[in-house]
Amino acid sequence: MKLIALLLIASALCWGQGAAACKPSSLNIPGAEYPCVHPDNRATFRMVAPDAQKVQVRVAGQGFDMVKGDDGAWTATTTPLVVGFHYYIVVVDGARVADPSSRTFFGGGWDNSGIEIPEPAEIDYYLPKDVPRGQVSQRWYLSKTTGKWRRSYVYTPPGYESGKSRYPVLYLMHGWGEDETGWHIQGHMDVILDNLIAAKKAKPMIVVMDNLNAVKPGEDGRIFTSVGRTPPPRPAATSGNAPAAPPRGGGLASFTGATFTEMMLTDLIPMVERTYRVLPGRENRAMAGLSMGGMQTFLTTLSNLDKFAYIGGFSGSSGGRGGFDAKTSNNGVFADAAAFNKRVKVLFLGIGSMEGPGTRNFSEQLTKAGIRNVYFESAGTAHEWLTWRRCLHDFAPRLFR
Amino acid sequence: MKLIALLLIASALCWGQGAAACKPSSLNIPGAEYPCVHPDNRATFRMVAPDAQKVQVRVAGQGFDMVKGDDGAWTATTTPLVVGFHYYIVVVDGARVADPSSRTFFGGGWDNSGIEIPEPAEIDYYLPKDVPRGQVSQRWYLSKTTGKWRRSYVYTPPGYESGKSRYPVLYLMHGWGEDETGWHIQGHMDVILDNLIAAKKAKPMIVVMDNLNAVKPGEDGRIFTSVGRTPPPRPAATSGNAPAAPPRGGGLASFTGATFTEMMLTDLIPMVERTYRVLPGRENRAMAGLSMGGMQTFLTTLSNLDKFAYIGGFSGSSGGRGGFDAKTSNNGVFADAAAFNKRVKVLFLGIGSMEGPGTRNFSEQLTKAGIRNVYFESAGTAHEWLTWRRCLHDFAPRLFR
Repeated sequence: MKLIALLLIASALCWGQGAAACKPSSLNIPGAEYPCVHPDNRATFRMVAPDAQKVQVRVAGQGFDMVKGDDGAWTATTTPLVVGFHYYIVVVDGARVADPSSRTFFGGGWDNSGIEIPEPAEIDYYLPKDVPRGQVSQRWYLSKTTGKWRRSYVYTPPGYESGKSRYPVLYLMHGWGEDETGWHIQGHMDVILDNLIAAKKAKPMIVVMDNLNAVKPGEDGRIFTSVGRTPPPRPAATSGNAPAAPPRGGGLASFTGATFTEMMLTDLIPMVERTYRVLPGRENRAMAGLSMGGMQTFLTTLSNLDKFAYIGGFSGSSGGRGGFDAKTSNNGVFADAAAFNKRVKVLFLGIGSMEGPGTRNFSEQLTKAGIRNVYFESAGTAHEWLTWRRCLHDFAPRLFR
Repeated sequence: MKLIALLLIASALCWGQGAAACKPSSLNIPGAEYPCVHPDNRATFRMVAPDAQKVQVRVAGQGFDMVKGDDGAWTATTTPLVVGFHYYIVVVDGARVADPSSRTFFGGGWDNSGIEIPEPAEIDYYLPKDVPRGQVSQRWYLSKTTGKWRRSYVYTPPGYESGKSRYPVLYLMHGWGEDETGWHIQGHMDVILDNLIAAKKAKPMIVVMDNLNAVKPGEDGRIFTSVGRTPPPRPAATSGNAPAAPPRGGGLASFTGATFTEMMLTDLIPMVERTYRVLPGRENRAMAGLSMGGMQTFLTTLSNLDKFAYIGGFSGSSGGRGGFDAKTSNNGVFADAAAFNKRVKVLFLGIGSMEGPGTRNFSEQLTKAGIRNVYFESAGTAHEWLTWRRCLHDFAPRLFR
């Protein structure tokens, strides 16, 4: 009897600890206890769907069947999840929807749910500290190239408003199915920069986050008047972690990147340079992007090296299709390594370790061809935002030196 | 036979016109054809839920059962809807979720769907025009009162960055279950101000949009680290148009407004005045808000008339519970009408005509007591964002004269 009583007490203690230890995701709506994250990075999800027959949560590339409780709510606890930000969806009797307990995040072409599996407490480069904060501003401008209003978000560093200094500029691009909000919402780019600048690890800089979509009047593609954006297609080499977009009405625009480059050079950069206190010239101009935004970065910068001296591809740089050839790739820009190394101050190739060897191989090929480059690998992360936060955190200190 | 053929042709033409005339809502995700809005303001919704037993869309205070088609998608067409912005939800086998075809909007305490039933084309005060655009900036600050990071959005008028002028400030509050993003996302406040300023109908001003939630350490309430906000309770007199929030884990914070006022005077206004080029003094400071934000505005301003000269309540001003008494209401601030009229340059009471007579009655009581006030009624609109856009459009030109 004593043993049983002790076992009961022990199990009650364990249960109590387990419930208390599952902390609501920082991305939940106010008041929502679920989803919550256990100390071992398992997550428990809860969905109210009293009349449903089957409910499943899909997160980080896996599906977990949920089980209905007496209260009509369905729950599931996952296996341990990779740290970082994950988009996720709930499937209710075949309907792919966002979890109403989560804030939504624009990814995969729609507003889906997000859960944050935090890094260990000592890793806080993307968390707000009591340091001077920059600001992120919504900047609308009318594009001559597309004939539409476009929205940029512009980070200005601490002290910008009250000072008179001029700053270098990083153009920072989102990925497929995301938009110009991704870097400061999912990516915490403002917090990362604030912390780096406060620690004097990065130079104060302006960061411009625009939308990859740019379609001329009459070009194939869809333009939406509310925000002026069109979803570019899924890139060839995404890993499987982003949930698929829900069914939608029409097809996707073709994407060559040429119109974006034209728009950027004709409309965006001039708007930025006449609106903000910007340092002129290529040595004060960087461009980087994640996934498709990395592809865009390579397309834009490698054909305009008179305008950019710093280049970053975050999970977006595997050397292009058809293999790398130092003599001919990207119109031969790598053919004269010495000339390239003189012009390009930083060529940064970042990738998550779970994304495969493509970027590492590309970096090695470049090195073999004499092209100086930085290879950065994010340990244990996939094609997701924690990889890109880490890339930015490593890339930004290298800029404008 | 000829007659039948003609009838078939006629019916085909009508059908074709009907389909073509249903235009995708401007709030849809890129590529989504549904929901769409018919010329007579009916809306057609579509939801993919192949295995569901029952699907309903709830919008503008009504529920519409959806009907399953052969493709597994459910559709419903509503009766004509009131113009303006409506939150809406879809109920799939009892699960209350956002429509994945719509962008989401923070209201009712979560990210629910929105549909825009446009005003007639000649009414364009809230649509972007080719005029100089101000910007809306995300401004984080650490509050001593709450001990938490808080986020404001700050509108600066066109020319702010390149100029040296100082500007008056309007503090503009959201409603219950919304947050500091509401005014520039749902409300189009930046576009409304840009257009008014370009037409010289309103003075250039800074507009600060903060979060109603403010809870001190140890006070009852919930604070969320990601964005530092807690949902205040539903006010006593909301009309039924906002969809109910989905089930959530816990209760709501108590709301007296006192902590917000303290936070605003101690943290927010000083932060704004040391960060931006602001004109000093009460005659350059206005406060307004919608619904619960209007209640907060009255609470804050009427007990701090040394700090505010302009006051606006949008669907948030019915004179308080227990009836209006000129001698005693709001600690007797209305008792000396002449003194009040001298200090308060504008007291603005706005309301939608579908919201009942409370605000009109309050205005009449104030007038009877000798208190100068502006009563503004938005024709044909309810407790929704179009009422508040119209209120702002009427209120802003009256400020700082």
